[in-house]
Amino acid sequence: MNTTQHTKRIETDSMGEIEVPADRYWGAQTQRSLIYFSIGQDLIPQEVIEAFGLLKKAAALTNAELGKLPKEKAQLIARAATEVADSKLNEHFPLRVWMTGSGTQANMNINEVIANRAIELAGGVKGSKDPIHPNDHVNLSQSSNDTFPTAMHLASAKAIQTRLLPQVQKLRDALHRKAEEFKEIVKIGRTHLQDAVPLTLGQEFSGYVAQLDDDRKRIETALPGLYELAIGGTAVGTGLNAPPQFSERVSAYLSKFTGLPFIPASNKFAALAAHDGMVMASGTLRVLACSLMKIANDIRWLGSGPRCGLGELLLPANEPGSSIMPGKVNPTQCEAMTMVAAQVMGNDTAIGIAGSQGNFELNVFKPMLVFNLLHSVTLLADSCHNFTCFLVEGLQANRGQIAHYVERSLMLVTALTPEIGYDQAAKVAHYALENDISLKQACLELKVLSAKKFDATVQPAKLAHPFK
Amino acid sequence: MNTTQHTKRIETDSMGEIEVPADRYWGAQTQRSLIYFSIGQDLIPQEVIEAFGLLKKAAALTNAELGKLPKEKAQLIARAATEVADSKLNEHFPLRVWMTGSGTQANMNINEVIANRAIELAGGVKGSKDPIHPNDHVNLSQSSNDTFPTAMHLASAKAIQTRLLPQVQKLRDALHRKAEEFKEIVKIGRTHLQDAVPLTLGQEFSGYVAQLDDDRKRIETALPGLYELAIGGTAVGTGLNAPPQFSERVSAYLSKFTGLPFIPASNKFAALAAHDGMVMASGTLRVLACSLMKIANDIRWLGSGPRCGLGELLLPANEPGSSIMPGKVNPTQCEAMTMVAAQVMGNDTAIGIAGSQGNFELNVFKPMLVFNLLHSVTLLADSCHNFTCFLVEGLQANRGQIAHYVERSLMLVTALTPEIGYDQAAKVAHYALENDISLKQACLELKVLSAKKFDATVQPAKLAHPFK
Amino acid sequence: MNTTQHTKRIETDSMGEIEVPADRYWGAQTQRSLIYFSIGQDLIPQEVIEAFGLLKKAAALTNAELGKLPKEKAQLIARAATEVADSKLNEHFPLRVWMTGSGTQANMNINEVIANRAIELAGGVKGSKDPIHPNDHVNLSQSSNDTFPTAMHLASAKAIQTRLLPQVQKLRDALHRKAEEFKEIVKIGRTHLQDAVPLTLGQEFSGYVAQLDDDRKRIETALPGLYELAIGGTAVGTGLNAPPQFSERVSAYLSKFTGLPFIPASNKFAALAAHDGMVMASGTLRVLACSLMKIANDIRWLGSGPRCGLGELLLPANEPGSSIMPGKVNPTQCEAMTMVAAQVMGNDTAIGIAGSQGNFELNVFKPMLVFNLLHSVTLLADSCHNFTCFLVEGLQANRGQIAHYVERSLMLVTALTPEIGYDQAAKVAHYALENDISLKQACLELKVLSAKKFDATVQPAKLAHPFK
Amino acid sequence: MNTTQHTKRIETDSMGEIEVPADRYWGAQTQRSLIYFSIGQDLIPQEVIEAFGLLKKAAALTNAELGKLPKEKAQLIARAATEVADSKLNEHFPLRVWMTGSGTQANMNINEVIANRAIELAGGVKGSKDPIHPNDHVNLSQSSNDTFPTAMHLASAKAIQTRLLPQVQKLRDALHRKAEEFKEIVKIGRTHLQDAVPLTLGQEFSGYVAQLDDDRKRIETALPGLYELAIGGTAVGTGLNAPPQFSERVSAYLSKFTGLPFIPASNKFAALAAHDGMVMASGTLRVLACSLMKIANDIRWLGSGPRCGLGELLLPANEPGSSIMPGKVNPTQCEAMTMVAAQVMGNDTAIGIAGSQGNFELNVFKPMLVFNLLHSVTLLADSCHNFTCFLVEGLQANRGQIAHYVERSLMLVTALTPEIGYDQAAKVAHYALENDISLKQACLELKVLSAKKFDATVQPAKLAHPFK
Repeated sequence: MNTTQHTKRIETDSMGEIEVPADRYWGAQTQRSLIYFSIGQDLIPQEVIEAFGLLKKAAALTNAELGKLPKEKAQLIARAATEVADSKLNEHFPLRVWMTGSGTQANMNINEVIANRAIELAGGVKGSKDPIHPNDHVNLSQSSNDTFPTAMHLASAKAIQTRLLPQVQKLRDALHRKAEEFKEIVKIGRTHLQDAVPLTLGQEFSGYVAQLDDDRKRIETALPGLYELAIGGTAVGTGLNAPPQFSERVSAYLSKFTGLPFIPASNKFAALAAHDGMVMASGTLRVLACSLMKIANDIRWLGSGPRCGLGELLLPANEPGSSIMPGKVNPTQCEAMTMVAAQVMGNDTAIGIAGSQGNFELNVFKPMLVFNLLHSVTLLADSCHNFTCFLVEGLQANRGQIAHYVERSLMLVTALTPEIGYDQAAKVAHYALENDISLKQACLELKVLSAKKFDATVQPAKLAHPFK
Repeated sequence: MNTTQHTKRIETDSMGEIEVPADRYWGAQTQRSLIYFSIGQDLIPQEVIEAFGLLKKAAALTNAELGKLPKEKAQLIARAATEVADSKLNEHFPLRVWMTGSGTQANMNINEVIANRAIELAGGVKGSKDPIHPNDHVNLSQSSNDTFPTAMHLASAKAIQTRLLPQVQKLRDALHRKAEEFKEIVKIGRTHLQDAVPLTLGQEFSGYVAQLDDDRKRIETALPGLYELAIGGTAVGTGLNAPPQFSERVSAYLSKFTGLPFIPASNKFAALAAHDGMVMASGTLRVLACSLMKIANDIRWLGSGPRCGLGELLLPANEPGSSIMPGKVNPTQCEAMTMVAAQVMGNDTAIGIAGSQGNFELNVFKPMLVFNLLHSVTLLADSCHNFTCFLVEGLQANRGQIAHYVERSLMLVTALTPEIGYDQAAKVAHYALENDISLKQACLELKVLSAKKFDATVQPAKLAHPFK
Repeated sequence: MNTTQHTKRIETDSMGEIEVPADRYWGAQTQRSLIYFSIGQDLIPQEVIEAFGLLKKAAALTNAELGKLPKEKAQLIARAATEVADSKLNEHFPLRVWMTGSGTQANMNINEVIANRAIELAGGVKGSKDPIHPNDHVNLSQSSNDTFPTAMHLASAKAIQTRLLPQVQKLRDALHRKAEEFKEIVKIGRTHLQDAVPLTLGQEFSGYVAQLDDDRKRIETALPGLYELAIGGTAVGTGLNAPPQFSERVSAYLSKFTGLPFIPASNKFAALAAHDGMVMASGTLRVLACSLMKIANDIRWLGSGPRCGLGELLLPANEPGSSIMPGKVNPTQCEAMTMVAAQVMGNDTAIGIAGSQGNFELNVFKPMLVFNLLHSVTLLADSCHNFTCFLVEGLQANRGQIAHYVERSLMLVTALTPEIGYDQAAKVAHYALENDISLKQACLELKVLSAKKFDATVQPAKLAHPFK
Repeated sequence: MNTTQHTKRIETDSMGEIEVPADRYWGAQTQRSLIYFSIGQDLIPQEVIEAFGLLKKAAALTNAELGKLPKEKAQLIARAATEVADSKLNEHFPLRVWMTGSGTQANMNINEVIANRAIELAGGVKGSKDPIHPNDHVNLSQSSNDTFPTAMHLASAKAIQTRLLPQVQKLRDALHRKAEEFKEIVKIGRTHLQDAVPLTLGQEFSGYVAQLDDDRKRIETALPGLYELAIGGTAVGTGLNAPPQFSERVSAYLSKFTGLPFIPASNKFAALAAHDGMVMASGTLRVLACSLMKIANDIRWLGSGPRCGLGELLLPANEPGSSIMPGKVNPTQCEAMTMVAAQVMGNDTAIGIAGSQGNFELNVFKPMLVFNLLHSVTLLADSCHNFTCFLVEGLQANRGQIAHYVERSLMLVTALTPEIGYDQAAKVAHYALENDISLKQACLELKVLSAKKFDATVQPAKLAHPFK
């Protein structure tokens, strides 16, 4: 008995025959790619595979409508493609990111898997290309050069819309609730890390909310660029071998499938040869990363301590403290977030370089462009989610410590300026600092103001709300 | 006779006395900065100085209207500030970028110069702070923490609107004219740098036009963020010491002065503590840089030769060729452009890092943020201008060479597929390649098609316009 | 029957009890991390897990020798740790990169798995912490703060030494063989993409060899920094709770295990708080990436065509050509390589940012630092390997095309300068270009030189070897 | 009277005649460049001009020795070149960085200025090219393609050796003195920004010293790459038109002039076509920037306050405090330093991109490569100098505050573990935190230890020096 006969089958392409695992739907070109592109571990992202599933379904239905493909073949393709889109065939997509820069092998992997699965559904023999041929039917009216960027945009726009933006909103809302909760807590401001005039903790948090509100809007400005699809451009952008209306109809199907407003790219030459829309999208994610770095840093600094830090915030203790140092709580969610932020900034550099390197009719950095963009989206979405649930929602103000600082701060002297003048005020501040006493005590010792007058004047809450 | 008496004068600040050059308007704090921040050669950009001039004028007029400043003092300040805004006092701004991260010394330099110039206009003694005090009058209702970011936004928005976008449009229009001029020239497409199916040279250029059209729109999405001004936030964002309405009125003045729609920042805490709007703006400039890298690369590759390159475009010869190699014309405008693109990408990295590093109520990377953004804007604007005038406008198609390629290319075989099938077509292509003959000759030798049929079928112009 | 009882077990830590899968060795802290750090898909790299295996073994043996741990416990730990080092327990390390910035959860995952596996080896009950406790025994004399950076350096140095450098050398050698093979092939040089004076194809390839030779040396300059280990520093660098000699002995064990010259870090405070050594290493990888970008670009440009490109090199055809365009061979290995290069440049940006962000006694970007460095190492090693095997080794010179260019090039006119002067030479070159004739023909038509004289003077091979 | 005759003169090149300012030495090609490359304000760095001065002198002397140039012409060139090298002709070098990527116009600017100045020295007529011709004599045996990279390396190596490294050493020494001064001051450690076990302030500073020691070594590893000079490669690396020995002799002269060990590049093809040595050098500067970011951040955080921050360090007050807030001292030197660090990281990205973009025999990003590298060197050198003089030297420990933290910190509980066990210790720590009391008080209230025993055990200095 020959087990190999049971575990392998022969597939062919224009280079000839090659053995593939019998239980896999992929064909000859995928199998060759496993040899030639055995680089690293990064697989073509699942989101791209799913997007390709939707795209191949849309293309098949469109081809049938436009009279290029028999209806029954289209239905077979659509059924198999739906399985791809529903992530039911994930183990049949083994290819890595580091392949041809047009993603040709990824496109062929999809074509081969859909063809063989459709053949199976039709009761045919895998590898026979009958009744469904990977090129002639699944790839009909298409080229890797237009399908891959279409799948890139579809996957990216969907991930941003359905994964990222809701999590940004969730974090924004959680911070907003904290801003409301903290709105009466007057605290000392800090500029240059040095004590400054007061504001409320709610005001401080309102800044984070404002940043995220703007981040959302900024990311949304990048979406129209991603809604433009290359499909219909085929090999070089002219649309050779695609029927008229193909681009419009496929885009309409994809809009229907996803609920997102996809349209044909206004210029197909640019859509294949450049990926400025991806660079723009990454740029807006980078701004979000910068905001999150600031917010996470602030929160961990404000929560530093418990005895030798600023100690204004109390962070939830999710994990045990150090094995050496009992009672230690670390701002671990902040650390995960700032690592993510740095990663997104690095991914953004990679995307910018790749985006600048198109030549003539094609940019051949497509797989790594979408790999990096989806990496950034996923990390940002997940870390916003965790940061919200495991940090922000459990955040408490350490009111005693906050009040202590306000009381001790010398910058409240600013409120005395109208009463006693800048020079006297400065004298009071320096006297208090040198003698390690409070401003009030300094005023009394220097006899510049009565205790009553001091209390009436130095009201931190008023300083925080000068216009009230 | 003691010449020093004639060339120096004494200025004072809270640290005491210091000598300054007698013919300079700056005061003590500027003079100290020259010592403490003697780092590199990069001066605070002139655009920032001019923006500060407009801002100080707007602040003085507003302070007067709101009853905080006597009208005659306001007028004196406004006159001096106008001179600053009109670049008449440039030699009085000697400070470098690498100073306090809030730009305090830059703000004080402005305050001191305006004060002393106003004093001079009033017939007073420079350094006397009478009748105009740099802090009490010029800086009234303001802090470095809100004026510097206001000047950043004003300078950046103005530079983008008035310097950059018109040049991008100019380049776009020049490329569009070329796209029209070249619209009937059928040429071979290239994907993966390899011969592909044809398109027209006009179509290829239309891709560049589309990229620049989108770049303009992308850059414009960043402008609203720059139109939001920090002014009125003063030290920490609460607006302490600024009168109500200050922010609105100053913004209105600045809009009037510039014709740009400036408004108060919706959240002043974020406006001081983060500079996401600058990061966003830089990100959109980065996309433009990526587009320009692609366009400039394409043009220099298409112009490569004259005998051993692609030779499809003829570039204007602006400079003498090599001293060694007569007749050599180099794509120098493309090289300047691609160097600019790489620089803008580097500046963008610097801006992203800086933008992520705010703490609490202040981001202290302000001077280098605006320095890098304006550097990018200037380089992009100037290189777009030169690229347009000294390259694109003089660009010519090398029609003979282009036709030669089309004729020789094997990829036209694609047009035969419907006639003779994919397999026969492949055979023809390989036969032609191996024997170094034309497709037509290969068809005839292999007897797959008559010459007449060949000529009727293989029409590159049809391939370039499949839907016509 | 309750299946859950069979598939789960209870583990405890200082936060209390938690259920873990019964067939996994990990404990409570790992289980909690799966909840709190469910961010993205990036697992702690396998190389780091293996390095931790070696480290824990070395630590156990050292603790026993120094009298801190009973010998039998040390042996149990060493046995379990060896299994970790040998990659036999991979499915027990499920944690993602985006965790605490000190890698505490990763360290605890190792401690828990080794403890439970050692308990099992001793016939004990998993979760009982008897006879092996994850903290008291496996983590003895250690802290996450010193073990994680030790594992980072060990994994990185080993990956560079054993994976990357051999592949760089292999690529270098393959290019060197080609340089030898091509050493007599005179070709036209190209500067600014424009035709220039000739050199040999072998000389051109010798430049690539030189770049890679230098890249290897540059990468080697970074290794001493990675050989310095943080181990022995424990929590803050003072070595609290570690016995004297611990650092030296553990380092010696690790040298013995790996054959690499590990030593204790000369300053443990810096070794925990900064990761400049990682930033340096990444910087040298970035230089390699830049070299590879140049080399891969050159090769694909030289191989461009087959009819409408430069066509000086013939690249092996590994995959079928385009489904639309028969006969198309794409430079796919070059594309994979240039995508890798751009990724390494992005990873490098991320590493630089992370490396700059340490505070006081700890840098908390450790997991993402090593994740990015190993990502770069792996991609570079694998792509060098594939580039060698699937591209360089099969590369052929297209001698006809190369000779054709040399013959047609006008830059050979340079050789005439000594004979006929610069001005005459320029005239000849322009005449030839305008009339689309050869230099020789131009000389004859302009009567500046006899055919005989021309042939004696214009000898490209001499121009390529002026000193021969 | 015709004033133009007095203020302009005619210069010529192969493009024809052009007017230049009569009082400038530059010629036709420089004048054209002023038109075609009017991009931004960045001039070719002065260091590059000086390096070119030395190079042209070395070339002239070598040409004379090798019999290619009459001795008197060589002497004239050498005299004029010496003036260039001595910065006496700075106003004659008006060209900007954004030119041809080979720096051809910069090379011609040098050639023209030296020629005209030499003509003047010889009593000739400027513009006459007699007795010194810019190409035939000043540029003899050279090409822009080898002179510009030679000047790049020379300028960069010299700036690193003579400007940067001494300042790094100076800062390192100042920090080392502080480490010694602070070596007995026991302070609380901080990991994850949270209180940890103690160390001394001197130990903390020793980490900075170690970083800078390693930075110096890292930067030095890049110098050999810069000592390799492209000179002698001429147009494409073959050395066409340069005499044998030219490369060696010019390198020897440059070594003699500078005291640095310059040698001919081992492979001239790589030396023109790639600039990996520059990328490497920038990478090592980037590591220094990361170190400085960490050090500057630590110092400003430790100096935060005076009442509401950490307050462990007292920073010198160089400038007046805020105009609003009396007594405010800001960590301005730290801010300048961290802005510089971010800039160097951005410059490094630009350099990496540029370095990866060579094609065939030439990388055409030369001027921007050296511009960025020298920018980084200058900023780092100057900021290290100022940071040393205006910050580190005046730094004082705030011993009271430091002791206060040590006393209050709960992490000293670690020292009790051997006495009372981990669980009891944890209980004590939590009890102290909840009741806001000291560890000692908690021990007494919980009756776990006597006061005497406590005092004998909890000795922070011992914890900081466990091996003493």
